[in-house]
Amino acid sequence: MEISVGIDVGGTLTKVAAVTAQGRILAEAEIPTKPGQSPSEFVARVVSRLHLMTSELGCEIAGVGLGLAGDVDSEKGVLRFAPSLSGWKQFNFRQAFSRHLKRPVEVDNDANLGVWGAYVVELKRKPRNVVGLALGTGVGGGIVVDGKLFRGATGSAGEIGHVVVSEGGAPCRCGSKGCLEAYAGSYGIERQARELLEAKPRRPSLLRRMYPDLAKLDCAGLDRAARQGDAVAREVWETAGRHLGVGIASLVLVLNPEVVLILGGVSRAGGLLFDPVRRHLAAQPFRTPFAKASVRVSKRHNWGCIGAALLAWEGVA
Amino acid sequence: MEISVGIDVGGTLTKVAAVTAQGRILAEAEIPTKPGQSPSEFVARVVSRLHLMTSELGCEIAGVGLGLAGDVDSEKGVLRFAPSLSGWKQFNFRQAFSRHLKRPVEVDNDANLGVWGAYVVELKRKPRNVVGLALGTGVGGGIVVDGKLFRGATGSAGEIGHVVVSEGGAPCRCGSKGCLEAYAGSYGIERQARELLEAKPRRPSLLRRMYPDLAKLDCAGLDRAARQGDAVAREVWETAGRHLGVGIASLVLVLNPEVVLILGGVSRAGGLLFDPVRRHLAAQPFRTPFAKASVRVSKRHNWGCIGAALLAWEGVA
Repeated sequence: MEISVGIDVGGTLTKVAAVTAQGRILAEAEIPTKPGQSPSEFVARVVSRLHLMTSELGCEIAGVGLGLAGDVDSEKGVLRFAPSLSGWKQFNFRQAFSRHLKRPVEVDNDANLGVWGAYVVELKRKPRNVVGLALGTGVGGGIVVDGKLFRGATGSAGEIGHVVVSEGGAPCRCGSKGCLEAYAGSYGIERQARELLEAKPRRPSLLRRMYPDLAKLDCAGLDRAARQGDAVAREVWETAGRHLGVGIASLVLVLNPEVVLILGGVSRAGGLLFDPVRRHLAAQPFRTPFAKASVRVSKRHNWGCIGAALLAWEGVA
Repeated sequence: MEISVGIDVGGTLTKVAAVTAQGRILAEAEIPTKPGQSPSEFVARVVSRLHLMTSELGCEIAGVGLGLAGDVDSEKGVLRFAPSLSGWKQFNFRQAFSRHLKRPVEVDNDANLGVWGAYVVELKRKPRNVVGLALGTGVGGGIVVDGKLFRGATGSAGEIGHVVVSEGGAPCRCGSKGCLEAYAGSYGIERQARELLEAKPRRPSLLRRMYPDLAKLDCAGLDRAARQGDAVAREVWETAGRHLGVGIASLVLVLNPEVVLILGGVSRAGGLLFDPVRRHLAAQPFRTPFAKASVRVSKRHNWGCIGAALLAWEGVA
């Protein structure tokens, strides 16, 4: 039996999975990424872990898909640059993996692959045009046009996190201001909560008791506090949702998708985040594209590996 | 010899042109639109003008392309709604024209068609991915993906004018706030100039002498005043350009085009408008998509008819 391998490279850990052509995971493993070492060493470690995995499964590798949180030239299979893997500039992962494995290798941005995985498995490729947002620490995106992953001229299409929703607004990690990510990524949401609490030190909030050290405040806690009725936490989610709504509305106007697909850990906040999004979309004056676009929030959170492997299957077929 | 007919329907005047398959205009005419009459009467008047034109040219009509400034279902050839043609809701222009002419009829949003015309004739279809902005009274847009006009799920893709660049910002004609159009369409630019002059009644400006009645202030005058060094006029163009830069940057991040194509009368302002755009794009932290995307400003202003006719040729071929 053949499997494809999906590899999701994070700044700290790398997930590796053996995936069927239908997107089912047969085995998974995690190894440390060690971005301080060379990318060739990383590839060698992944390959030896893969050999172990396939021999345990009694499977052959048909193809390899690799997702990286950075600027990827998917045509050449090269990581140009990734903020969390800053020593690995301009490295050809396709060449490196195919030298070891002699199999087709697809390399892409991790958000593109997450969206592709959910598109194939969860949406069953039914809608032809989809915009996907991956709400993690930052905000990534992936676009499906006419049933295919849309990469644009340099493989950078779908960099949704740095669309500006509020000119001169909240500072973003990228150096710009008012990016969607600065409002709807966990990093930005947590920063907003801290700022609210610090700006009004006497305003009562559960969060102060939960986090004597505000540096430790996180989205999971904000979620709990909001569900217990904490006004500060609710305000933070409301603000995040409103800005996310502004960003999604712009994407719907530009791309006119059938589905806006939401992935990523931040989406666990559910209605706290998406009620304001839906209200904003319902209030848009130009109805046609909004009447057609449904917002779907995926409940699974391991689409990166699945999408990588499924893209590899496309390359094999 | 065969020609295709390009029809560009404005709120007041409708332009009609006989166009070769290479996009050359052989004859042009204008007729009043009269949106108070029924759309069937409009179609009958256009058709009789076309018969006159083709008999003068000694040509046959191969196909018809029609552009409308509104929400068009290009698949069915139906105008759903247009703000400036508010009596013509849900009218099937394809059916109406083909009943008279027995030829293939393409119906689309006017900005889509303008961008398509400039893409085919001026860019010679060389770049595969293009974002086009039509800067007129409002701001329209058209997107070319992989050499084809991208319409999205309901034909609404490319509604770039209502992308929000500044949440809660300048009021837009659509009812929202902070839309790109509220800053970079002539309507918004002129409003900004008036507001600046009214907010500081003692601030000296050439514009006050040029326009004793500020309601008559227009972009052509703002252009002249700025070229004569008027600080208010220069500030208005700078603001428009900066917001246009923010909007274009977001489009480049989402769509990663090879060319950002600018059409429409407002672009006559040249460097006054585009220097701040280029500065904003040059300052973007994520370089790859911006290094690839060149901003091209078209010098011609009749792309609507040409694009409509060229799209009709595609349908004929």
